[in-house]
Amino acid sequence: MTTSQQSGDPLEDNDRITPGAPLDAPRLVREQGVTAPLGFRAAGIAAGIKASGAPDLALVFNEGPDYSAAGVFTRNQVKAAPVLWSRQVLTTGRLRAVVLNSGGANACTGPGGFQDTHATAEAVAEALSNWGTETGAIEVAVCSTGLIGDRLPMDKVLAGVAEIVHEMGGGLTGGTDAAYAIMTTDTVPKQVALHHPQGWNVGGMAKGAGMLAPSMATMLCVLTTDARATADQLDAALRKATARTLDRLDVDGSTSTNDTVLLLSSGASGIPVEQDDLDAAIFAVCDDLSAQLMADAEGVTKRVVITVAGARTEDDAVAVARTVARDSLVKTALFGSDPNWGRVLAATGIAPVEIDPDRISVSFNGNPVCRDGCGVAGAREVDLSGADITVEIGLGLGDATASIRTTDLSHGYVEENSAYSS
Amino acid sequence: MTTSQQSGDPLEDNDRITPGAPLDAPRLVREQGVTAPLGFRAAGIAAGIKASGAPDLALVFNEGPDYSAAGVFTRNQVKAAPVLWSRQVLTTGRLRAVVLNSGGANACTGPGGFQDTHATAEAVAEALSNWGTETGAIEVAVCSTGLIGDRLPMDKVLAGVAEIVHEMGGGLTGGTDAAYAIMTTDTVPKQVALHHPQGWNVGGMAKGAGMLAPSMATMLCVLTTDARATADQLDAALRKATARTLDRLDVDGSTSTNDTVLLLSSGASGIPVEQDDLDAAIFAVCDDLSAQLMADAEGVTKRVVITVAGARTEDDAVAVARTVARDSLVKTALFGSDPNWGRVLAATGIAPVEIDPDRISVSFNGNPVCRDGCGVAGAREVDLSGADITVEIGLGLGDATASIRTTDLSHGYVEENSAYSS
Repeated sequence: MTTSQQSGDPLEDNDRITPGAPLDAPRLVREQGVTAPLGFRAAGIAAGIKASGAPDLALVFNEGPDYSAAGVFTRNQVKAAPVLWSRQVLTTGRLRAVVLNSGGANACTGPGGFQDTHATAEAVAEALSNWGTETGAIEVAVCSTGLIGDRLPMDKVLAGVAEIVHEMGGGLTGGTDAAYAIMTTDTVPKQVALHHPQGWNVGGMAKGAGMLAPSMATMLCVLTTDARATADQLDAALRKATARTLDRLDVDGSTSTNDTVLLLSSGASGIPVEQDDLDAAIFAVCDDLSAQLMADAEGVTKRVVITVAGARTEDDAVAVARTVARDSLVKTALFGSDPNWGRVLAATGIAPVEIDPDRISVSFNGNPVCRDGCGVAGAREVDLSGADITVEIGLGLGDATASIRTTDLSHGYVEENSAYSS
Repeated sequence: MTTSQQSGDPLEDNDRITPGAPLDAPRLVREQGVTAPLGFRAAGIAAGIKASGAPDLALVFNEGPDYSAAGVFTRNQVKAAPVLWSRQVLTTGRLRAVVLNSGGANACTGPGGFQDTHATAEAVAEALSNWGTETGAIEVAVCSTGLIGDRLPMDKVLAGVAEIVHEMGGGLTGGTDAAYAIMTTDTVPKQVALHHPQGWNVGGMAKGAGMLAPSMATMLCVLTTDARATADQLDAALRKATARTLDRLDVDGSTSTNDTVLLLSSGASGIPVEQDDLDAAIFAVCDDLSAQLMADAEGVTKRVVITVAGARTEDDAVAVARTVARDSLVKTALFGSDPNWGRVLAATGIAPVEIDPDRISVSFNGNPVCRDGCGVAGAREVDLSGADITVEIGLGLGDATASIRTTDLSHGYVEENSAYSS
C-alpha cells in the first residue's frame, strides 16, 4: 500500500519524495494516528479557546510502561513560550503527556505567557494525578498554535484541561479527535500510523498550513510508538527523519515561532527495536505527514517538488532547491500552469551557492525545458495543468541531490493570509 | 519642492526614505529625464519587438564633449547577454550611447544571444557613424528587458536601430519617449531630472515592476549628467548612491538577470563638479527613481518602508529589514491592512542576524504595537488602511539603522505574475 492512494488530501492524489524509502513490509494507514501504538490515549475537545467553538484542545497521554521522549524545535530566534517550556522539560528525555491547543500561539507574550504555559502543564499534571496517574508538570510538554501575540484565555484552557482527561480514548477515535483539535487554517486533519511486521507501531499527527518552512522541526507534530526505545534512540531517529522530511517542506519561507515535533515511546509492545528499523519507521511517518502538510497548505492548487541534482554537496542542493521553492515569481508562474523556466534560472542564480550558469538544465514533469542554460524547443508548451508538478534542476557540478516540497502562490494564499487576524 | 508632490505615481503620493537628503537648492522635476542635461539626445520607438506594437526600443546618445561613464550590474549569477556585454565595454570608462529594448531579456540565450547583443552594438555604432558621429561598438552599452529565455527578433531590432538614430531629440520629448520604450509591466514611465544651482544637471530614467530586488544595481536605469566628471568620479558616485537607494528596494526578493544602471557624463555644461555635490545629486536622483519604482511595482496597493533601528551594524539592519520585506505573511497582512505585528516578529526571528527577542519593539505608522517582544494595548486597532505604511523595528542592540522599500503582496501581484509569459 502506498500513500498515493490514501485519503485525507484536499487534492486528488499525493506524491512521495521518496518512493523508494527503505521499508519493506511496514504498512502505512491514515485512518489512525497517535493512538495507533499500544499504551497511548488521546482526546480533542472544544474548550472555548477559539471563538468559533471548533475543537481547540488536545491531549496525548503515554500510559507506559516506558516514558522515553525526544523533541526538535523551531530555529526561529523568536520562540513561543510553549517551545521554551517543552525544550526545557525534554532535557530529561522523558514525557508522560503532551497538551496542545489551537486558537492562540502564546508567542511574543513575555513572562506572563510563559507562566501560562507552566500553569497549563501543572494543571495537566494535577488532572492526570487526580485521574489516577501520578504525574509532575515536568513530564508534560505543551504546544500552542494560532495567532502570535495574544495571551491565551487561561480560564478556558484550565477548565478544558480538567475536562479533557476524562475524554481520553485509544484506537481510532482518541487520536483522530486530537488531530482535529490542533487544526488552525488546516482544512483536514493529518495523521498516519505505521504497523511494523515485528509487532510494534508508530503513530503521528501534525498540523500546519501557513508560516510553513520548518527548521529542525515543523509546526506541531506528535509522534508515538509502542516500541521499546531509549530517549537517545528516539532522539537520533527523530533528528535524522525531520532533517530530510519536515525540514524540506517549505511553503512560504516563513519559519514559525512554535514549530515542535515530539516523539514519545510507551514501550507497550514490549518489543525492543533496532535503530535502523526505528529510523526507517519514523522517516516513513514524517515523510507521509510532510506530504499531507504540503497537500493542505494555505491556498494550494499545485503540489510541487523541486529536485536539485548535480550539486557539489547535499547542503548545496537543499539551498538551491529552497531558494527556487521560495521564489514568488516561480510560485506564481506555477499557479498559472506556466512553464516559465527562465524564472527558475533567475532564482537558481541568486541561491547562496556558486553555480555555473552554462551548465544548468531544467525539466518540468520530466520534460526538458532548458539545457546548458538555454531553452530547448517546445519548452513553452509543456503542460503544467495538473495538480502535481515536479521541477528538476541539474547543476552539472557534482553528484549530490535533494528535494524540497512546496506549493504554488495563489489567490487563495493571498486571500487567506490577508484576513487571518482581523 | 519635494518629491511628495510629484506626479507620475499610480498612487496618490510618494514617500522618501531620506527626507533629509543632503541637498539644499538643487531642484528635482519629473517632467524630464535623461535629456535634461546638456549634450544628450534620446528616442523611443516601436520597432515591432513587442507583439503589442507598443514602444520597445530606446536610444540614449551622448554628444560630448566628454564620454565618461560608469555602471553597476546585477549580482545574479545568471547574467543576461547584454549585461555581459555592457560590463565588458564599461571597463574603458567611456560610452557614447546606450541602446535599450523591452520585449525580451535576451537572458539564458547562450552564445547566440551574446552575438545578438554584439550585433546590436555594432549596428548602433554604424548607424551613428553614418549619421555623422564616428562611433565604435565598444562605445555602445546594450540593455534588454522582458521575458527570459527567448532570442530577440533581430530583424526587428536591427531595422529599429537604423531608424531610431533619426528620431533622437533633446529636451522634454526625447528622454520621455525613451522612458516609455523601456517599460514592460510598468504602468507609468519613471524619469526625473535634477537641476543644480551651480549650473549642471542630472537626468535619469528607470524601468522595473517585478523581479525587483536589485543587488548592486536595479533593473534598467540610465542616468546622464552634463557636469564635467571623470569615469572614476562617476563610478564612485554611482556605487555610493545605488548601495543606499536602488539596492534597498525589494519588491519580491527576486533579483533579475538583467539589472543594469549606467551613468554617462557629457561634460557639456563645462562645469567641473566636486565629488560631494555629484554624490548628493546622483543619490537624490536614484532615491527618487527608487520611490517611483516602488510606487508602480506589480500589484502594489501599499507602499511600504521597513526601517530597522538599534542594530549593531548597518549591514545587520539591512539584513533584518530585507527579511521582513520579503516575508509573504507580512506582505499579505499589509495587503489586508492588518496590523499583524506577530508576523513581523516571526520574520525578524529568522533573519540571519543574532537578535534578542525580548528587546524587539515594533511600530506601524508611528504607533507602537510591540515593546520588549510583547504586544501593547491597542496594537490590533492600528489603522493601516492608507496607501503608505511604515514599519519601524527596534532591535535594542546598537545604533545602526537602515530602511528597505517594499510593497504588499496582493491579488494583483499573483494575477500579473501567473499570466506573464503565457
